[in-house]
Amino acid sequence: MTAQKIKVAVTGATGETGVSIVKALLESEEFAITAYVRPSSTEKPQLQGFKEKGVPIIPLDLEAAPLEEIVKAFQGQEIIISGVMPHTSDIEKKLANAAKQVGVKRFIPSFFAPLAPPTGVNILREIKEEVINHVKKLHLPYTVIDAGGWYQVSLPNPPSGKLDYMTKIPSNVQYGDGHYSTSVVDLGDIGKYVALIIKDPRTLNKYVFAYNEVWTHDAMFKLVEELSGETVERQSVPEEALEAGIQEASKAYKQDPSYKNFVLLIVQQYANQNWVRGDNLPETGTYLGYLLSKDLYPDFKFVGLRDFAKEALDGKAQPVYTTKTFDF
Amino acid sequence: MTAQKIKVAVTGATGETGVSIVKALLESEEFAITAYVRPSSTEKPQLQGFKEKGVPIIPLDLEAAPLEEIVKAFQGQEIIISGVMPHTSDIEKKLANAAKQVGVKRFIPSFFAPLAPPTGVNILREIKEEVINHVKKLHLPYTVIDAGGWYQVSLPNPPSGKLDYMTKIPSNVQYGDGHYSTSVVDLGDIGKYVALIIKDPRTLNKYVFAYNEVWTHDAMFKLVEELSGETVERQSVPEEALEAGIQEASKAYKQDPSYKNFVLLIVQQYANQNWVRGDNLPETGTYLGYLLSKDLYPDFKFVGLRDFAKEALDGKAQPVYTTKTFDF
Repeated sequence: MTAQKIKVAVTGATGETGVSIVKALLESEEFAITAYVRPSSTEKPQLQGFKEKGVPIIPLDLEAAPLEEIVKAFQGQEIIISGVMPHTSDIEKKLANAAKQVGVKRFIPSFFAPLAPPTGVNILREIKEEVINHVKKLHLPYTVIDAGGWYQVSLPNPPSGKLDYMTKIPSNVQYGDGHYSTSVVDLGDIGKYVALIIKDPRTLNKYVFAYNEVWTHDAMFKLVEELSGETVERQSVPEEALEAGIQEASKAYKQDPSYKNFVLLIVQQYANQNWVRGDNLPETGTYLGYLLSKDLYPDFKFVGLRDFAKEALDGKAQPVYTTKTFDF
Repeated sequence: MTAQKIKVAVTGATGETGVSIVKALLESEEFAITAYVRPSSTEKPQLQGFKEKGVPIIPLDLEAAPLEEIVKAFQGQEIIISGVMPHTSDIEKKLANAAKQVGVKRFIPSFFAPLAPPTGVNILREIKEEVINHVKKLHLPYTVIDAGGWYQVSLPNPPSGKLDYMTKIPSNVQYGDGHYSTSVVDLGDIGKYVALIIKDPRTLNKYVFAYNEVWTHDAMFKLVEELSGETVERQSVPEEALEAGIQEASKAYKQDPSYKNFVLLIVQQYANQNWVRGDNLPETGTYLGYLLSKDLYPDFKFVGLRDFAKEALDGKAQPVYTTKTFDF
């Protein structure tokens, strides 16, 4: 007897987290996956491998489509995972309304980010808060999944430029004297955590924090120096300068809410929560009401940052955000 | 050896919930209580009994006093319980800032109300959400305590007017056909739950829902009819009429945020969440992340609604809101 596969819908399947999730769901073989992508994204190269594995790719414009059309498109799905970019809460609220009408067993809103308190620290987190509050108003079954900072964008780049290929996000900045610590995770592992979490009854209507390891900034620089044999220059930013930068970027964003100003602001807000404030630590997760991946899945075979760094310095890691530009 | 008493500060100690809390804390004899009241409230009759039992009454204007003065006033306190009326979040945010500076072990914001989702259902709950979000930004240890609808304002009034003395809040309205159910609690028991919750390590940084019993509206009417021997007329309000009333009151409040419009709105919003939406039920509490008093304290000797109703119909119950008017 073959066990019935769980029907899972993934929206935003071409995003970095979306790809990690679909890959892991395919590997586990317990899920019948359908990927929903913007009509303009159906030919994206990220989808090629999924198509070959028989994943149905449904073009759907969540912004333009009326609710009834979205409900129809998701009919029969048991779990909806949202991987859409949460620049506004409107699309996800609409998706949640559809999920309620469909009667899904679980809705996974697009969180998947380092920990922050609900308001006052990160504007992206505040948008997500609007979404989860709407979900709670609907009494829709949900799981919030947040994740540590990606290895892929956390490692300092040695002067040889060995990690130039990895990402365009600058990562040689160190806040304060580097003693602050944060939780990190391999992007590839996030999907694997998601595959465990969405079928786990303990995580229904809960918040879960998925992370692999906790590192100080100083130790990360030393790791890259040890493995590369190079001296890595640190661009030290005092805490006060970061705080001033956030104030300035926040003012600029209020005056002109452009994408450039948005990115300038959240990059600094993430730095603040990840390092200076200590929001992105397991103990803060517990304080904020999260269950921890380490407690739920103590036997999870995760990729360690040291192993990842070796691979990355050997030129073998998967680059991220290569299709987007953060040059401004 | 005498165990050291836990130092507890109670603000808003003259309010209905504040009085219930101070009474219960005094009874338990494990707490050293200090009551903080508005300078204009120091001679209120509610405080007489507390003064006789040696409770220090500190006059403090939380709105006008600078932060440093508030910090100084709470110095040495281990737990701060806020019983202030949450018409705005400003006062409580300031109190939370002070609590953080004092380094209290636990801050109890002024929730103490029937359950509702964080936003979109009750404007008072939305103000409280701003407070708890601020608390989380501060990483201040907290416990949110919500409570069922008070027996004191829930019982229908028989035509003889036997319950006229109890409250001025009208309670003979029934929504839909009366089959909706809600959680209720004796106001006097709320303080007793609080006395257990604030010293309980299981409730640190958690939400707790304190309630005694779950009743349908229909059963409440029948209870009063049985005990009084009278036929109690039901003012039936269809769900649609309540929804329309909320829309109208919401519009009026937006145009003119007067106290009258505020009360007109929240009275209907409470009716909606308590009865029609089903927010104020233990299972919704669990969904919303609350621990339940029934699970935490299974042996708690609570007053049942039947016993309370007998006492109330005998004219022996303690009236509520007698000093305030809801005539409009």
